[in-house]
Amino acid sequence: MEYRFKVWLEKEGQPVLGDGLLHLLTMIRQHGSIRKAAGEMKMSYRQAWGNIKKAEDRLGINLLIKQIGGEAGGGAQLTPEAEMFIERYREFRSEVDSAVRESFRKFFEPGES
Amino acid sequence: MEYRFKVWLEKEGQPVLGDGLLHLLTMIRQHGSIRKAAGEMKMSYRQAWGNIKKAEDRLGINLLIKQIGGEAGGGAQLTPEAEMFIERYREFRSEVDSAVRESFRKFFEPGES
Repeated sequence: MEYRFKVWLEKEGQPVLGDGLLHLLTMIRQHGSIRKAAGEMKMSYRQAWGNIKKAEDRLGINLLIKQIGGEAGGGAQLTPEAEMFIERYREFRSEVDSAVRESFRKFFEPGES
Repeated sequence: MEYRFKVWLEKEGQPVLGDGLLHLLTMIRQHGSIRKAAGEMKMSYRQAWGNIKKAEDRLGINLLIKQIGGEAGGGAQLTPEAEMFIERYREFRSEVDSAVRESFRKFFEPGES
């Protein structure tokens, strides 16, 4: 038997950060482009940007700096606030993961620890 | 900001126990009837029984004792194995809940603890 879990953050009952947006923001950092990040996640640019915009509105912080125009049609990078926020979320998620694993072992694999 | 989480158990990649089935089994214990429990959860009898049967097959244990026939069309009660399993799951879930709450406070409400 295995355990599975999902954890995410909400503000006023609306999701603001979970694994999906974390992945999208990580891809944007890697590619410097919303469009490329969206493509890798099989999302449209509109969907990707919509998700980011919603999270920005709910959090009240800017997550992206968009560079408009240029040969490649502009790019995007994470704001320092976004970097801090996703780093904190990552640490939170990792601590939760360890805690769930530990509890799972305690209750469902007591002989195997 | 708030946290939300879901946790569930799987066997060979297939879900065996999560909040949905826990709720259904708890309702069956309360009502002594799959049909009434299903009705309260806005499920059909077929769906409810299908979910239980799948979990039984995956876990390799019987979850319900079904009483066939009688005036009320039979009833159902949880097996001792089901009682033990859902009690353990409940404790597991409650421990996970505390751990997630604690991590959330640490990372997202550091000044308020």
